[in-house]
Parts: sequence; C-alpha cells; structure tokens
Amino acid sequence: MGHLGNHLLNAADFHSTERGYGIRYLTTINRTWVLSRLVIELSSTPQAYDEFYVATWVSNVMRTFTHRDFAIQSLSGDITYGYGQSIWAMIDTVTRQPVDIVSINDGLINKYIEPDEPCPIEKFRRARFASSPTLVSEVTTGYTDVDINGHINSVKYIEHMLNAVPVEYHRRNQLSRIDIAYTAECHGADHIRIYTETTSPQDFTVSLRRVNPDDSETEACSARMHFVPR
Amino acid sequence: MGHLGNHLLNAADFHSTERGYGIRYLTTINRTWVLSRLVIELSSTPQAYDEFYVATWVSNVMRTFTHRDFAIQSLSGDITYGYGQSIWAMIDTVTRQPVDIVSINDGLINKYIEPDEPCPIEKFRRARFASSPTLVSEVTTGYTDVDINGHINSVKYIEHMLNAVPVEYHRRNQLSRIDIAYTAECHGADHIRIYTETTSPQDFTVSLRRVNPDDSETEACSARMHFVPR
Repeated sequence: MGHLGNHLLNAADFHSTERGYGIRYLTTINRTWVLSRLVIELSSTPQAYDEFYVATWVSNVMRTFTHRDFAIQSLSGDITYGYGQSIWAMIDTVTRQPVDIVSINDGLINKYIEPDEPCPIEKFRRARFASSPTLVSEVTTGYTDVDINGHINSVKYIEHMLNAVPVEYHRRNQLSRIDIAYTAECHGADHIRIYTETTSPQDFTVSLRRVNPDDSETEACSARMHFVPR
Repeated sequence: MGHLGNHLLNAADFHSTERGYGIRYLTTINRTWVLSRLVIELSSTPQAYDEFYVATWVSNVMRTFTHRDFAIQSLSGDITYGYGQSIWAMIDTVTRQPVDIVSINDGLINKYIEPDEPCPIEKFRRARFASSPTLVSEVTTGYTDVDINGHINSVKYIEHMLNAVPVEYHRRNQLSRIDIAYTAECHGADHIRIYTETTSPQDFTVSLRRVNPDDSETEACSARMHFVPR
C-alpha cells in the first residue's frame, strides 16, 4: 500500500508539473500543495511482476482547494484495480495560509478540469470514534519518515497506521479502502501515538497523534480502514 | 537509501529471472536466494527528478555462494553515483540448507559470470565492536516490514538501522557507504533491538538483534555505516 500510495503522489506531481502547477515551480513563488484528504479503494491488487499504471486528473477546483482523482489500471487497460480521490490545498510557504489557486498562472488550472472522467467510488468519509479509542503503538519518527522539507511524508502516516494493525490480521485480510484526513503536520524526531477503534471485524478507525512537549496530543491525521478477507 | 536498495534488489531479481535463476523459477524446485552480504557505496546521489539506472552482473560463483555487483548510473551514463556488491546463498526452502548453485540448470550460471566488469570499491568489511554497543531503539516489526514469505525485507533492516541514527545527524550528514551482513532471519511481529557504537564522528557500527521469547537475543544483522558531511 505504501508503494502504491507513493505512485499516486508521484503521478499527481508529474501531472501538475506538466501543466505548470508542480511543486518545483510553486516553491519559487512561495506556494506549495498540501494534501488534505486521500481515499484509495481497491477491488483487486496487482500481483508480483504485474505491470500497472496510475492515471490522474483534476476533477474540480475551488478557491483554495482542488480535487484530484486517480485510477489504477493494468498496462493493457483490461483490469481496473481501483480508484483514488484526493483534496489538496495550496498554501503560502511563508504564512502557511491558504491561497487562491485560480490566482496562479491566470487561472490556467480551470482549463485542466475534467469533471466527467468517472471515479465511481463513494466520496470521502470522515473517521468518527464511537467511544475512546485504544492506544496501540508509539513511534518516534526517523530518517525514513521525513521528506525533503523535514515533514513526515504523507504515505508514511498510512504505513504507521497499517503497522498498528497486527501482522496476523493483515495475513488474513487485505486493505480494500482507506479514507484519511490530514489535519496537522509532524516533523522528524516527533513522538507519535496511534489509537484505534474496531467498529466491525473488517473496520478500523485510526487516530495518529503527535505528542507535544507538555505531553498533550495534537491529532495529525485520522483514517477509516476497511479490510476484506483474503 | 531504502528506495535505492529496493532498486538494487529488483535489478538482481530481473537479471536472474532473465537468465533462468529467478526466485519465481527457483521456488518451483524448492530453492531460493538468500542475501548474505550487501555493500553500497555512493560518491554522490541522484537529486529529485534525476533519471538513473542500476546495472548488475554476476562477478563470481562458488559452490553455494554467488557474488553480484551493481553500478548506479545516470541515464546518460555520464555520472556514476556509486557501486554495490552482494553475496547470495542458494538454499533449499524445505531444509533451509545451502545447495550447490552449479547443480541448477546444468551449471548454466557459469556462462553468465563477468569477472572483468569493474566494481572499484573496497570489498565487504565486517562490523566489529570495540566495546559494548549502546541500545538506541526497540521496534516491533509490522505490516510494512514483511515480504511475501513472511520474512523481514532485506532493505527494511537497513531502514531500521538508519532510523536508529538521529534525524538531526542525517540532516547534516549523508550515508556514503554501508556494509551489512545478514546472519539470521526475522519475521513479522518480532521484537528487535538496535545497538550502535560510534567509532568516529562519521562512522557507526550497528547490531540489530531479535529478542527471543526467553529475552535472549539473536543478532539478525550487523553493519558499518560511513557518513560524509553534506
């Protein structure tokens, strides 16, 4: 899943770069993309040595957010393994405040909206806890978690959440859908705590919280994970 | 480094598969490759968006071991980022004992030895501890560590070792060489302890040990890591 997640994020970067909205260009004008929501839903998974590709397109642009969808397909196009949906904010890298996306490149991004491309999965569903979730693991973020800006890579949060579910459970079940909301950033050497609640034998709700110096906690992201038996 | 390490291991798999010695075929005759030693030495690293490739070849075959070398080069061939060396054993997947490599495919592998291909880095150097190393981290292996056979992926050991070095140190220094010896296998949900010894401001010796049910420890791998200032 981590490998697939990175392919999705790389596809988003290549696609936006080719259209003049890549982070390499945005950095030069003190802007960057921040991932706010990500959904990945798989009906099957590529097997070892299978060749697949990730398609991506912008499905909607609001003032400070853009919706980007994904399709994961076999090279021949015969098999659609699944779809993704994401919501990105554009922020000012100095003030960390949202900025008007349409103000960049004279609204060029509006030319690239493909609202009719199908992405037939349910919209993002927020994680909700019925009761107090259980602390299942604690991790200090390290070298492998950190991106070039010193932030924790978006996919690494997913990997830490998946690691909070027992290996034996993964052996018998396969993740079929994840809905993740990113709410606060973590950095290298942050201490994080992962809480889960099991809402059915196939459903986990997860909260990943950064531990502050005063031992209070800030939720960095929360997710719903749905599994199917293998 | 983890990403690069995976490229090396994938290159080894593609190269051996194309020559009739891939693990997909070997599995059908109850044989598999086991990585025993790995050296990666980099004189520089590809930057974001740089295109590079990994070349690999077999430099020597002994009865139960084979030497495989690597070169990491820019797509144009102008830049050699570094080299790798590895030693692989072939084992019987039932008895876990080494088997005679030349007995497979009537010794076909001897046709593929390229002893004259240059790999101008120092040979593997074993990790040695001057005194008692310091326990720096403890990890329980999870979903992201495990390969299709339930073993910990060879590159994940390297990632855990790199995470045992402070993020702040990585920010100021870049890994330029790692020599790793794999001695025992770990599985998912194993508890591991990582010990390090600093032999110079740029050199770490690392021991990764599996904790057994009686709290004794078995060394799974040990490494020397050499860093250069960024």
